[in-house]
Amino acid sequence: MRVMGIDPGTALTGYGVVEQEGQHLRLVAAGAVRTSPEWPASERLFCLYRELQQVILAHRPEAMAVEKLFFNRNVRTAMAVGEARGVVLLAAAQAKLPVAEYTPPAVKLAVTGVGSAGKHQVGVMVARLLNLTAPPTPDDVADALAVAICHLHQATTLSRLARARALGGEAP
Amino acid sequence: MRVMGIDPGTALTGYGVVEQEGQHLRLVAAGAVRTSPEWPASERLFCLYRELQQVILAHRPEAMAVEKLFFNRNVRTAMAVGEARGVVLLAAAQAKLPVAEYTPPAVKLAVTGVGSAGKHQVGVMVARLLNLTAPPTPDDVADALAVAICHLHQATTLSRLARARALGGEAP
Repeated sequence: MRVMGIDPGTALTGYGVVEQEGQHLRLVAAGAVRTSPEWPASERLFCLYRELQQVILAHRPEAMAVEKLFFNRNVRTAMAVGEARGVVLLAAAQAKLPVAEYTPPAVKLAVTGVGSAGKHQVGVMVARLLNLTAPPTPDDVADALAVAICHLHQATTLSRLARARALGGEAP
Repeated sequence: MRVMGIDPGTALTGYGVVEQEGQHLRLVAAGAVRTSPEWPASERLFCLYRELQQVILAHRPEAMAVEKLFFNRNVRTAMAVGEARGVVLLAAAQAKLPVAEYTPPAVKLAVTGVGSAGKHQVGVMVARLLNLTAPPTPDDVADALAVAICHLHQATTLSRLARARALGGEAP
């Protein structure tokens, strides 16, 4: 299964495509879309949209996993991040990708085993899980890969549960 | 000049296209895009996007004017409205439309002369200015038309100022 993870933001949106083959995770592609604060908002969103479309077209993920932001930021920031999220979700819908959302603690828990892990710890574990020589930079790219990995874990767990149920007894 | 006004929201986005011919304002098209809360967010945004694209294609506005929300709502609402705004701004950028944003008091002031006017007053004045038999409904459509009218007023004022400057003396 191939999943595209996204950490949406206005100035910088991180993305990462991860493939699971059996027990192994493989990095397919990762990067960040940067836009200038000097451009009009609509141009920044258009740029983000086109780049995401190109990544989807080039790497054909089967699902998208997006970091769901916590609501402890201010309202102005929330609206701006919402604009980027809107474009991300639109790109997913156009490519007919199902979208899953995970909160930062859920992502950290899936990747490091600790829901309150720091950025550095997430980067180190992402590098280990994907067999990279160093943590991906900037952090937004590591976060995007982490949310993709979180979704693959979740999908694996769900399919195990479904198999257990199909084999008879209720899953524990 | 033909302007498309938008009042963005998640469940309902109002739009209205207004043309100014000399001193006269004319309603070209108006409506609302409704999406079901039962659909996934990405599908709702895709639906909004497609409908806006169709309106732009059918009525060829030269500019887009968007209601800029005040930041007194809660963060969750702000993020959801931001998602709709992101898709609206993207549709504008794709159609190469310049985007202007106006706060609700600026829109009310332009349409009714009073920055704190109520919804009903805005609807009544929009109907009067566009020569309609009744205020447009729902309010979101009236608001979308009001923001388009606000932009046309602004554009007229700016071009008058520019003319005054070009004729010699500084404008008052």
